[in-house]
Amino acid sequence: MQKFFFGPHSCALASHIALEESGAEYEAVRLDLVAGDQKKPEYLKINPKARVPALVTDRGILTENPAILAYVAQTNPKARLAPLDDAYAFGKIQSFNAYLCATVHVAHAHGRRGYRWANEQSSFDDMKKKVPETMAACIQLIEDGMLEGPWVAGDQFSIADPYLFTIASWLESDGVDPKRFPRVLDHRNRMAARPAVQRVLPLHDR
Amino acid sequence: MQKFFFGPHSCALASHIALEESGAEYEAVRLDLVAGDQKKPEYLKINPKARVPALVTDRGILTENPAILAYVAQTNPKARLAPLDDAYAFGKIQSFNAYLCATVHVAHAHGRRGYRWANEQSSFDDMKKKVPETMAACIQLIEDGMLEGPWVAGDQFSIADPYLFTIASWLESDGVDPKRFPRVLDHRNRMAARPAVQRVLPLHDR
Repeated sequence: MQKFFFGPHSCALASHIALEESGAEYEAVRLDLVAGDQKKPEYLKINPKARVPALVTDRGILTENPAILAYVAQTNPKARLAPLDDAYAFGKIQSFNAYLCATVHVAHAHGRRGYRWANEQSSFDDMKKKVPETMAACIQLIEDGMLEGPWVAGDQFSIADPYLFTIASWLESDGVDPKRFPRVLDHRNRMAARPAVQRVLPLHDR
Repeated sequence: MQKFFFGPHSCALASHIALEESGAEYEAVRLDLVAGDQKKPEYLKINPKARVPALVTDRGILTENPAILAYVAQTNPKARLAPLDDAYAFGKIQSFNAYLCATVHVAHAHGRRGYRWANEQSSFDDMKKKVPETMAACIQLIEDGMLEGPWVAGDQFSIADPYLFTIASWLESDGVDPKRFPRVLDHRNRMAARPAVQRVLPLHDR
C-alpha cells in the first residue's frame, strides 16, 4: 500500500487531502517536524531533501506537492481531480499549483525559515516583517482572477483546491486578515466543510 | 499561432528550448526585463504576475515553467518529451521540475532579487553571501541522484532537461564552480550541443 509522509501544519496537507478525496488506499505516516524527524537517516533515505510531503508508491518515491497532486489525479481518474484529457485545462491547474509552490509558499516561509536564505538575525527579522505584504500581494492576485470560483478551476473541484486551502489556512499566522479576500475566504470555508478535509485535518493537529 | 514571451538570461529559457525541441509552431517574443517590459500594462494583461515565461495558446494563457513544460510535452506527443502514459514516470519528472522552480531557482534569486522578500540592504547582502552555499547544496542533491543520467530521467530526454540546463547555466554567476559537479556539468555540455539549444541560445543573448 502507498505510504504518505506528512508533518502537522505543513504544506503536505494539500497532498493529504487530495489522497483522501481520491479514494486511493494509503497509509499516512506523521513526522514530528519540530523534533526533526525529517532529518533522521531513515527518512533521508525516503526524501534526501528532508522535507514533506513524500509518497512512497509501489514504483518508487514521489516528492513535491505539484507532482504528487498530479499523480494522485492521474492514478485515480474516477475521482475526477483534474481534467486529464485536456492539456490546456490541466496546464491551468498546474500553473496555479506552480505559483503556490514557487511563489506563495516561498513568501510564507520567509516568516519562519529565513535561515534557508540568510545567516543574520537582522535579515530574519526584516524578512518576517515583509511577509504580510508579500502574502497579501499573492493572495490578491488569486482573489482577482486566478481563483475562477467557486473552485480554483471553476465548477469542477480539482487538485488545485486542497493546495489553495492549505496555504490560505496560514494567512492569520502570516499577519494577513483573510476577510480582505472574500472569494479566497469563501473557498476556504467551503473546503473546510468537505468530509475528506474533516477526516484529514485532525491528523494535522499539533 | 502560439506566442511565447521570454526574457534573456531568465528561466524562460527552459520552456523556450522545450518548445523548440517539440516541433510546435510558435512565435517567440522577447521582453527587455531590465527596461521593465514585464511590468507594462500590455504585458500585465498577459501575465499579471509580471514574470516570464508566458505561453499564449489558442485556448488562453499558461504561465510557470513546470506547467508550460508539461503542456508542451502533452500537446506534442510525437516529440516524446515526457512519459505521457506512465503517471509515475511523469510524476518523477514533475517532482524534479517542482524542485527546480520552488527551491533551486528560489535559492538563486536571493542573490539578485532579495527585495522580493526583505527591505534592507544589509539583508540583501546577507542573502547574496549565502547563494554559493545554498545553490551548491541544491546541485549536490541533483548530482548525487536526482539526475539519473545521461538525461535527468535516464536514457530518455525529457522536459526536465532544458530546465536543469537553464539553472545549471547560472552556476558561475552564483559563485559555484560547476566542475565540483561533473555529472551536472556533463549534462550541461550535452544540452549545449543539441541543435534546438543552439538555435534558441542566441535569442537570449543580452
